[in-house]
Amino acid sequence: MGTLYLFPTTLGESPLSAVLPEMNTQLMSGIQHFIVEDSRTARRFIRKCLPTVVIDELTFFVLNKHTPPDTISTFLQPLKDGHDMGVLSEAGCPAIADPGADVVAYAQQIGSRVVPLVGPSSIILALMASGFNGQSFAFNGYLPVQLPDKIKALKKYEGRIVHDQQTQIFIETPYRNAKTLADILTNCPPDFRLCIAADITLSTEYIVTDTIKSWKNNIPDLNKRPAIFILYR
Amino acid sequence: MGTLYLFPTTLGESPLSAVLPEMNTQLMSGIQHFIVEDSRTARRFIRKCLPTVVIDELTFFVLNKHTPPDTISTFLQPLKDGHDMGVLSEAGCPAIADPGADVVAYAQQIGSRVVPLVGPSSIILALMASGFNGQSFAFNGYLPVQLPDKIKALKKYEGRIVHDQQTQIFIETPYRNAKTLADILTNCPPDFRLCIAADITLSTEYIVTDTIKSWKNNIPDLNKRPAIFILYR
Repeated sequence: MGTLYLFPTTLGESPLSAVLPEMNTQLMSGIQHFIVEDSRTARRFIRKCLPTVVIDELTFFVLNKHTPPDTISTFLQPLKDGHDMGVLSEAGCPAIADPGADVVAYAQQIGSRVVPLVGPSSIILALMASGFNGQSFAFNGYLPVQLPDKIKALKKYEGRIVHDQQTQIFIETPYRNAKTLADILTNCPPDFRLCIAADITLSTEYIVTDTIKSWKNNIPDLNKRPAIFILYR
Repeated sequence: MGTLYLFPTTLGESPLSAVLPEMNTQLMSGIQHFIVEDSRTARRFIRKCLPTVVIDELTFFVLNKHTPPDTISTFLQPLKDGHDMGVLSEAGCPAIADPGADVVAYAQQIGSRVVPLVGPSSIILALMASGFNGQSFAFNGYLPVQLPDKIKALKKYEGRIVHDQQTQIFIETPYRNAKTLADILTNCPPDFRLCIAADITLSTEYIVTDTIKSWKNNIPDLNKRPAIFILYR
């Protein structure tokens, strides 16, 4: 049985040497079969890592939210045949906030070795720079879109900050950042602290922690910028 | 004002090129003032990154659980004087399951730029390879030591798996691994899945997911191995 390698990718246009260990590209050069979220961006990334690779000799299986669950097992046939395989996500770490987890679960089920490689996780990078509790934290994905549900979710997270001293992390789609930030500032206690992290690892990186009260007077422009929000008190 | 760089370190004796981007050492070579958990291991790590550096010309401030909170602000004097500074943890990412968060919080408070660098986070690596839900997860640090409290904590996490579909992550000190694993296997539902991740990024790396029921018949030897436990169903 082959080994399933999990390859993180850059978060936008940062140089490889800024965010990925050299070993990742060395390992990638030995792999012919990849499971990817989008084959066009995956080819571009592999060509960036391995400029002399013959892309047409590689096999790509596309795994996204439209992939029927029962096809996932067929993707791993090369692994069963003894070939190493690679999983690539669109940005950051495979299987974190990303569909890759299903294929990893299947690889674990059939007893394959799974090797996660180091790369940029916007969640961990934002948390490191927030100054908040890193001994206990939760990543909650997206806040609900509808305001009553969003407020309900924020109240729940507030409770976990107060009772469990658990740092609460969310992401948002770039076009909803402004609305979500406004909703957080309106609905969270003024003395709580919010870390806003945008464009992580890019030249425009912005990671700032302040109180809800202070943010209200100083709202940053997050338009079209991938952002992470972290709440604590 | 200088910039506070957060430098991850290797998790044990893995080569730098396996887990750290090249840029980290380039940035390190421009820094003279470091905040570290233990100055002996920090010196050794810096020498590994920068073989020609004159270690005696560097300044080290030691931040651990014995450091009085009011000294932390004095550590950042070089930053206030315009020098870049570095934070290094003992293993992995500063400020994640580590005292570095306090100094980062103070740097954020005084308006300094904080730049987190990429490196190995055993939490994220284990989660990637577990096959569990990476859209919603919590890191809970250590389980309580006393059995009644430990069982109570496990029941609470079980509830969050069932009601929130939230993956639950813990760590344990190596000498308590066997006891904690036995307690998890006795007290969690047999159909729940447990991922055991040990020696992450090392040549003896072991990351395996199975049901509680199956683990009971096949207990791995975790003696003296740094381990992460991840629970889901």
